[in-house]
Amino acid sequence: MDSWSRTESVDAPLHALGFEIGELSPEKVTARAKVTQICCQPFKVLHGGVSALVAEALASIGAHMASGFKRVAGVQLSINHLNSARLGDHVLAEASPVKVGKTIQLWEVKLWKVDPLSSGKEVLISSATVTLLSNLPVPESAKHAGDNLKKLSKL
Amino acid sequence: MDSWSRTESVDAPLHALGFEIGELSPEKVTARAKVTQICCQPFKVLHGGVSALVAEALASIGAHMASGFKRVAGVQLSINHLNSARLGDHVLAEASPVKVGKTIQLWEVKLWKVDPLSSGKEVLISSATVTLLSNLPVPESAKHAGDNLKKLSKL
Amino acid sequence: MDSWSRTESVDAPLHALGFEIGELSPEKVTARAKVTQICCQPFKVLHGGVSALVAEALASIGAHMASGFKRVAGVQLSINHLNSARLGDHVLAEASPVKVGKTIQLWEVKLWKVDPLSSGKEVLISSATVTLLSNLPVPESAKHAGDNLKKLSKL
Amino acid sequence: MDSWSRTESVDAPLHALGFEIGELSPEKVTARAKVTQICCQPFKVLHGGVSALVAEALASIGAHMASGFKRVAGVQLSINHLNSARLGDHVLAEASPVKVGKTIQLWEVKLWKVDPLSSGKEVLISSATVTLLSNLPVPESAKHAGDNLKKLSKL
Repeated sequence: MDSWSRTESVDAPLHALGFEIGELSPEKVTARAKVTQICCQPFKVLHGGVSALVAEALASIGAHMASGFKRVAGVQLSINHLNSARLGDHVLAEASPVKVGKTIQLWEVKLWKVDPLSSGKEVLISSATVTLLSNLPVPESAKHAGDNLKKLSKL
Repeated sequence: MDSWSRTESVDAPLHALGFEIGELSPEKVTARAKVTQICCQPFKVLHGGVSALVAEALASIGAHMASGFKRVAGVQLSINHLNSARLGDHVLAEASPVKVGKTIQLWEVKLWKVDPLSSGKEVLISSATVTLLSNLPVPESAKHAGDNLKKLSKL
Repeated sequence: MDSWSRTESVDAPLHALGFEIGELSPEKVTARAKVTQICCQPFKVLHGGVSALVAEALASIGAHMASGFKRVAGVQLSINHLNSARLGDHVLAEASPVKVGKTIQLWEVKLWKVDPLSSGKEVLISSATVTLLSNLPVPESAKHAGDNLKKLSKL
Repeated sequence: MDSWSRTESVDAPLHALGFEIGELSPEKVTARAKVTQICCQPFKVLHGGVSALVAEALASIGAHMASGFKRVAGVQLSINHLNSARLGDHVLAEASPVKVGKTIQLWEVKLWKVDPLSSGKEVLISSATVTLLSNLPVPESAKHAGDNLKKLSKL
C-alpha cells in the first residue's frame, strides 16, 4: 500500500488536506505535503489551522502506537506559528514523544519548510505540543479502529 | 451566494472539511457542520485537529474583519478538548473577540454539539483561544485576498 | 482564621507573593492582592509569571475541592496576558470549572484590575485555562495534605 | 555581585521563591533552586505555578536581552507538567530562544530535576513555551528598568 492510500486509511482529514504519512513508529511519525490551494488561507500561505490539524493527527497516531493500540484522546493542543509556507512550498511534519506515561502522553510536533530536492529542513513553520489521555478502554464497537494502523506499522 | 459557496471563497480548508460559515461580523463568526467521515478519526468521533482548524479559521476571519481588513497572522492557538462528537452529530462553532488591540488580538472559540431541530447548544466539545498579530501590511501581491470576505460581510 | 492566614495554610507560594484567598468553593475560588514590588517585573507592572502562578494555584485548589479532596495534578496551563496592572493597582483573580470530569478537570481563571472602593471589575489582565488530572490516589504520607483546605471550606 | 543578589535586582518574584539566576545571555538564561516549603503545594511537591513563573521570568529576561534591551511583554505562556520534584530536590531551569523576530519572540523553557553533586539533568519536570512581543518602546518613566540586567550581563 502506498503512502497516500495508507494516510487515507489511518487519518481521513489529514488525507483530505493532501498530506501523506511517511515514518510510522511509536518514536516518530512524519507526514509531508506540497502546499496546495486546499490547505491555504486567502493570502496563499499555509493555513495555521492545517498545521494544528497535522500536529494533532501525528501525535494521536504516535500515542496510539505507543500505548500498544489502546484508545487515546487528545485533551490539549498548543501551537506556535513562527514562519509561513507559501503555495507550492514543501512541508514536513515530525512528531516525537516527550513523555509516554501510563495515563498521560505528551508529544511534540514540528513543521518545517523543506527543499524537496535535498532532505534538509529549512525553516521551522510551527511548533506544537499535544497532551493526550492514554490507555483508555477500546469500546466493543470500535475494536477494529486501530487495525489499519496496526497493519501498516507492522507492530 | 449560499453559505456553502461563501465558505469555499473565504476559507478553503474549512470548506474541504464540510463546514459552512453562518454569522460573519467583527463581533462574532460562526460555522456549522454535520460530522461526516472526512472529519473523523478512526474511532468515528470528530478529529481534535478538525476542531483546532475550525478555531483558527473562525478567529482569523473575525480578526481580519475586526482589523478593518488589514492582514492578520495567527501566532498561537491553545485548545482543550472536553467531550466528543460522533459521526452524524451536528456541531456549531462560535468565535468572539476577547481583545481587539492594535498589535495583538485574542479570540475565543467554542465548539458545541447541537440539536439540529432546536437551536440549543447541548455539550461543549472544545474550547480554544487564538492569539493573532493584527494590522500587518497587506503585500501588493495579496491586496485582493480579503475581497471575498469584504463582499460577503458587507462591511 | 483571617483570609491572610488561611492563604498561607493552603498555598504557600500564593501567600508569599502577597495574595489572599477570598471565596473557596468547588464552583468558585477567588484571590486578591494589591500589586507590590514583590510581584512586579522591572518595568513595575505585574509579572506575567505571577498571574500564571495565581491561575495554577486557584485552579488546583478548586479542582481539589471539586474532586472530593482526592489528589489532583496540573498537567497543562495556558495563559494569555492582555493588559498590564501597575504597582499599587488592585487585582482580583477568579477561577471556575469548565468541566469536572472523572479523570480530567478543566478550569478557567481570569485576572482583573479592580477598583478597591467599588466591586467593579475594570480591565481583564490575563485569561488562563488549567487542565488537571483528577481523582488521583492520595499517598499515605500526604493524607493530611488537604486538611487545611477541608477545614477552611467547611465541606 | 553574587548570583543571589543579582536575581533580586533582576526579577523580584523569582528571587522571592528562592531561585537564583545562573547563565545570563541572549542565547541562554538559567536559574536553579533547592525546592523549599515556599515553592511547594500542600502535597510537598514543587507547585506547578512556580514552574510557570520561572518559565515566564527566564523567557522575559532572555527576550529583553535579545531585543537589545528594548521593552518586551509576554503575551502567551503554555506549560506542560510532566514529573514532580519534591521538597529538598534540586531543580534547574533553562530558557533558550526558538525565534527572535522583530515583532514576536518565542522562547522555550525546560525545568529539570538535577543531582546537585553532578551536573546531570535527571528528570524533565516541565516544558514551556513563552510568546513575547518584542521591540516595544521603553517609556521615559522606565528607562532605567533594564539597567541592572545590562550591568550584570555585561552586554
